[in-house]
Amino acid sequence: MNFHSGVHAVLYALFDQTEAVDHGAMATQVEYCIERGCHGITVLGLATEVLKLTPEERARLIATVGRANAGRLPFSVTIAGNSVAEQVALARHAADAGADWLILQPPMVGTYGADIYLDFFTRVASATTLPVAVQNAPQYLGRALTGEDLVRLQEKCPNLAAVKGEDAALGIRRIIDIAGARLKVLGGRGGLEMTDCLRAGCSGFVLAPDIAPVAARLFDHWRAGRMAEADALYAEILPAATFVMQSLEHLITYGKRIFAAQAGMTVHDRQPCLPTTEFGLATADRWARQLATLKA
Amino acid sequence: MNFHSGVHAVLYALFDQTEAVDHGAMATQVEYCIERGCHGITVLGLATEVLKLTPEERARLIATVGRANAGRLPFSVTIAGNSVAEQVALARHAADAGADWLILQPPMVGTYGADIYLDFFTRVASATTLPVAVQNAPQYLGRALTGEDLVRLQEKCPNLAAVKGEDAALGIRRIIDIAGARLKVLGGRGGLEMTDCLRAGCSGFVLAPDIAPVAARLFDHWRAGRMAEADALYAEILPAATFVMQSLEHLITYGKRIFAAQAGMTVHDRQPCLPTTEFGLATADRWARQLATLKA
Amino acid sequence: MNFHSGVHAVLYALFDQTEAVDHGAMATQVEYCIERGCHGITVLGLATEVLKLTPEERARLIATVGRANAGRLPFSVTIAGNSVAEQVALARHAADAGADWLILQPPMVGTYGADIYLDFFTRVASATTLPVAVQNAPQYLGRALTGEDLVRLQEKCPNLAAVKGEDAALGIRRIIDIAGARLKVLGGRGGLEMTDCLRAGCSGFVLAPDIAPVAARLFDHWRAGRMAEADALYAEILPAATFVMQSLEHLITYGKRIFAAQAGMTVHDRQPCLPTTEFGLATADRWARQLATLKA
Amino acid sequence: MNFHSGVHAVLYALFDQTEAVDHGAMATQVEYCIERGCHGITVLGLATEVLKLTPEERARLIATVGRANAGRLPFSVTIAGNSVAEQVALARHAADAGADWLILQPPMVGTYGADIYLDFFTRVASATTLPVAVQNAPQYLGRALTGEDLVRLQEKCPNLAAVKGEDAALGIRRIIDIAGARLKVLGGRGGLEMTDCLRAGCSGFVLAPDIAPVAARLFDHWRAGRMAEADALYAEILPAATFVMQSLEHLITYGKRIFAAQAGMTVHDRQPCLPTTEFGLATADRWARQLATLKA
Repeated sequence: MNFHSGVHAVLYALFDQTEAVDHGAMATQVEYCIERGCHGITVLGLATEVLKLTPEERARLIATVGRANAGRLPFSVTIAGNSVAEQVALARHAADAGADWLILQPPMVGTYGADIYLDFFTRVASATTLPVAVQNAPQYLGRALTGEDLVRLQEKCPNLAAVKGEDAALGIRRIIDIAGARLKVLGGRGGLEMTDCLRAGCSGFVLAPDIAPVAARLFDHWRAGRMAEADALYAEILPAATFVMQSLEHLITYGKRIFAAQAGMTVHDRQPCLPTTEFGLATADRWARQLATLKA
Repeated sequence: MNFHSGVHAVLYALFDQTEAVDHGAMATQVEYCIERGCHGITVLGLATEVLKLTPEERARLIATVGRANAGRLPFSVTIAGNSVAEQVALARHAADAGADWLILQPPMVGTYGADIYLDFFTRVASATTLPVAVQNAPQYLGRALTGEDLVRLQEKCPNLAAVKGEDAALGIRRIIDIAGARLKVLGGRGGLEMTDCLRAGCSGFVLAPDIAPVAARLFDHWRAGRMAEADALYAEILPAATFVMQSLEHLITYGKRIFAAQAGMTVHDRQPCLPTTEFGLATADRWARQLATLKA
Repeated sequence: MNFHSGVHAVLYALFDQTEAVDHGAMATQVEYCIERGCHGITVLGLATEVLKLTPEERARLIATVGRANAGRLPFSVTIAGNSVAEQVALARHAADAGADWLILQPPMVGTYGADIYLDFFTRVASATTLPVAVQNAPQYLGRALTGEDLVRLQEKCPNLAAVKGEDAALGIRRIIDIAGARLKVLGGRGGLEMTDCLRAGCSGFVLAPDIAPVAARLFDHWRAGRMAEADALYAEILPAATFVMQSLEHLITYGKRIFAAQAGMTVHDRQPCLPTTEFGLATADRWARQLATLKA
Repeated sequence: MNFHSGVHAVLYALFDQTEAVDHGAMATQVEYCIERGCHGITVLGLATEVLKLTPEERARLIATVGRANAGRLPFSVTIAGNSVAEQVALARHAADAGADWLILQPPMVGTYGADIYLDFFTRVASATTLPVAVQNAPQYLGRALTGEDLVRLQEKCPNLAAVKGEDAALGIRRIIDIAGARLKVLGGRGGLEMTDCLRAGCSGFVLAPDIAPVAARLFDHWRAGRMAEADALYAEILPAATFVMQSLEHLITYGKRIFAAQAGMTVHDRQPCLPTTEFGLATADRWARQLATLKA
């Protein structure tokens, strides 16, 4: 499976009791995702709490994940950063660690017209020989390019190969209608509307590991033409996905615990994060058990 | 079933080709909801595109729905309006039309501290002898009361009986933990997290009629102690609900068409609304057919 | 002075002790604005708390203001409403009351692509023979057209004559650079950046009557080539304008009182509104006295 | 003048042609602020484009500014960072560089109830012996504490000495009414409502150096009881301040140039930033010349 196809597991950030990154636990998480049939490994996305990690922590984490993956699955890194230099430095760490492709986030400081983001992405993309995608998540990032903008960007950046489009399936389809001939489009959003996004033309997904293994199975059905099985599996994973995706704060606190329950791991939160409640933990536990039955 | 229990169908606004309210179609919609087992009828919620209707249109619509229902199901009216006088006038129309209870929306002009909303609601509630709920939908209305605010409001308004809480199940539970001893809490949001909300303690739901009949069946299972059947049905309705609830604009354009397809009716939009696309219509059609199988 | 030039006073909504519209006080306000040298009268803008007024109240208010003005100054009406029919009905009331031009607000329900607003405005504009402007206030209304959109709209609506552009002077200038050859541009925002907006090319302003009379004097200086006097007067009115324009809620509570203090009138608020504080009233009183010295 | 009194100049970030921090220019800027009578020096606020600087760049900048100031003025550092560890590390750099006090920013990832921020601030504050303030800027940061929250925080953090409250004067006053007996309150927002904030009880301000020197003179008048001179000077600086404060993007692009024009320096932008226009530059140039006349 190539880099813009299939289900890429975007790792949760795992911390120890002192709130430091737990590199051993991160390597275990990589192993879990590979064993459970994910098609790719991604790190430093929103599920990785990237904005809580310093550039130094990000660089070390990239190295850990690259080593743990050891070339077994396509490996990608989300590149966040509010200056060109910061993104370029991170892209170099990713290349050094064996990344196969990069997902560029727009800078998260100020809001500007599309040209400013096109210039920014062009400068970062031209500093790497890796294929790049851009992250287009209007609801989460408050900044997004139109399909027309993406076509213009692709003309400037021959290594722009894909878009990670976190939006409703109808919005994803609008992008594909305009830019789909030139760019692959990957979905996300924790699996919400996954089969609608496949019908819209998504070639892959980036999903956190509470859902990614079973979503990878769903994707395998779809690719093999077993649409009915894919649709049935979608209905089975959607209740858990819906609970988790009520907000990014829910994802970090409860999605991570649903993953950890399946993987037999323990969660230590890095502050600030949504505090757990008894009802929330019981709900997460119920969905974790339901997802576990799907993997049998 | 009393007014704060079960699944209340909040009617879609149906227009004719001139964009005028189609009162005949509205009466047909009431009949559809009653026949299909909904537990209550609500009108003038967000699904009814209330903000596109003038007060005069609202008053006429209340009368039409009251007549069509003819006392068969508990009948409620969402009271929107940006002055006390406007809300009070609408509340009188509702009482005249046989409404059993009212759902008060916060005024949607300006944003204020909680005391301003408490005073506003108190003035409206004290002008009616009907039981009232308040609508607490932070994501849709941008204004919401805390559980503590609701307890204070209940002390001022003895006829405050319920909260319509459109929020994640964890948020709903927070309200119930604080105000649940005094107030019934109803959920909404098109059925998202419906079983989680039941576990959180919701006593009912207000849902549009694309989903309401099958959700009523789910509720009947739950009330009868058939949790497994309720959970299974939730998984079956959630894919359609997820598509519809991507935004209020999706709900109005596509949720309404999913209802119409099931009811054998035709949709004419009142502008402004999200324009349909071929892909969107195909997706809506697929989910309408899937929901239809659940009612067999 | 023609309709798109000079300072148009957009009236505050004045209520009596029962929160009903005080038509006598509204007529007095018109008289005040005419006597103090304003160049036009506008009603039903955001300063008029238009969203708190029912369509019936709006129609009556238009009639009152038209009668009070009696053709003495160019008279315009802001047309708000969330359906074409509602806006068209209001436009007819305005024409009947002798309005010289209309300012169309985008519908405030849902958010859509530009084409939806262009269609909506085209339908309303084609139902009137009066010249129309559109209100372009991204910060206040959350919806705005680009300069390119406005040019496209003007091609569809020959009676589109102006834009009321409430934005930073740099944003206003961007509109003028693109659409200024076809459309007059009026500013607003309570007088903030008034001389910068004149330098950007604004042909007029729509301002509430706490500021409008002295702003009209500023405009007279500018038109007569007395830029230094205009700049000096701007510096004198800006402290009061800044206090008032901290938010629309400030404008309604304190801007109205600064007007009333100058006009010798009494304010009764219609709820919901920002409650006054002792410090707020003292501040408003200070700025009212300072503005009064400018009119001597 | 002690640390929570007077006008503290919060430095602009100055870059060279490669977009690297220009440490020589930063030292020159410190010198400029001291020579022109500012009462304190602050670095790493929003005017310093802190979110565009890596932690390493922040640490080096703190050192540069500390060295340039050399203990001549009270020196403070805004501490941004999305983990406790990141903020604590930065606070140590500040202490090492001779900082007199710190301004803690809330973490800018996720939104939470007040308790989460109180815990976060408490952990950071307890890791330093310096006096700390918290930044309370609802409009810019999207997160803020109430007066009651601040009192609770002060009970946990004996070294909490002040609040930097960027809000309308009426909001500032609300904080002072509740927490003013325990905490000093400093204003900001580029000087908007500066005399209203003094009347509200602000003990100081944090302002960028385009405005800070003349604002320091205003403050000196006020402290010496020359209110009329302070009020007159406020009216003279407000037009420039209003232009600059249309948005943070305006501040970074044009406020910085207005400073540079007065200081005889050249601006190189770090992307992403608002691109200049001819009209914008002409407007900035006019206000720079007007401010220069005030310093004569």
